[in-house]
Amino acid sequence: MTYRLYHMQSSGNCWKPRVALHQLGLDFELVDVDIMKGESRTEAFMARNPNGRVPLLELPDGRFLAESNAMLAYLAEGTDLIPADRYARALVFQWMFFEQYSHEPYIAVARYWRHLEGKEPPEAVPGQIEDRGYAALGVMEQRLAEAPFFAGDIYSIADIALYAYTHVAHEGGFSLEDFPNIRAWLARTATTPRFVGMDWRP
Amino acid sequence: MTYRLYHMQSSGNCWKPRVALHQLGLDFELVDVDIMKGESRTEAFMARNPNGRVPLLELPDGRFLAESNAMLAYLAEGTDLIPADRYARALVFQWMFFEQYSHEPYIAVARYWRHLEGKEPPEAVPGQIEDRGYAALGVMEQRLAEAPFFAGDIYSIADIALYAYTHVAHEGGFSLEDFPNIRAWLARTATTPRFVGMDWRP
Repeated sequence: MTYRLYHMQSSGNCWKPRVALHQLGLDFELVDVDIMKGESRTEAFMARNPNGRVPLLELPDGRFLAESNAMLAYLAEGTDLIPADRYARALVFQWMFFEQYSHEPYIAVARYWRHLEGKEPPEAVPGQIEDRGYAALGVMEQRLAEAPFFAGDIYSIADIALYAYTHVAHEGGFSLEDFPNIRAWLARTATTPRFVGMDWRP
Repeated sequence: MTYRLYHMQSSGNCWKPRVALHQLGLDFELVDVDIMKGESRTEAFMARNPNGRVPLLELPDGRFLAESNAMLAYLAEGTDLIPADRYARALVFQWMFFEQYSHEPYIAVARYWRHLEGKEPPEAVPGQIEDRGYAALGVMEQRLAEAPFFAGDIYSIADIALYAYTHVAHEGGFSLEDFPNIRAWLARTATTPRFVGMDWRP
């Protein structure tokens, strides 16, 4: 038995466990789930993940784990993808929670609507997605002036979490022109050992 | 030196580290930050947390940690508030990411607008906050039919993360009447050793 990942190829959240599994040298197989066709909301799928979302990771023993960043934490335990130092490890979680709360709902959601649905995103407050997305990029830019990676000196799962949608931010209408530190970090991340991009499949 | 928590008393996210610090028997002091008056967006505060949010935890050595659930992970390490089993620990993170992505943006945001601002929440899609908030409660109800706590048999920081806004869900207009497992879990959580509620201060 190996890992089995229920995923959609074009989803940044689904790319996160793919790249981590590959960088860690773990064997896995993919099960394609097309969320645009409602395949993550079928009765069969929701028996596996009641929250009706991909990615979903099936462990070699058949148990399931949801939430892309929880998968990263699980897979990285005891490896070089998570720092040994307690404070650096806390920063990994700080940046992963930042990603899901302050970054993904703007940068990934804009991309979902503009790139995948071909529509403008619905907004409660006009301009909020743009403002908050750029605010998140500003916080990242400032952090990357202090350290080469989000947890400090070493590449970690926090970088995987933030690379996912930052490297396709332009597909949601965000420009990285004014964020040189982010652009250098994207390039640095993409040259880590065994790094694979969004189109790669095992 | 002790821990210093920059917080707002009425915020569920700020309650999380308060209760964890107290349950773990750690000394700490509070610094009140009124987000309604913009105090988390001042230059002085943003020098400490560039994301401009509370809670913010200052460690005894003067370093800072943001994101309520990252604080829980940091404080709980090696304690009874996080399970020793690797899969159970992964579930803790699964539920903490669920809380920040699928629960807080609906249940806490509705409470923020209705209870603290005294206004209806702005919505891009009318009814979405209600639909998604009840969907999150439904996922929780189903989990609590399988296990007494979110990570399984033992109380953990995942329960703290989800208790924060679930126990005040009514302040955002959500009824727990149809969620008996959630109501029993709230009562169970509130009787754990050294548990303190939202009004408590050290």
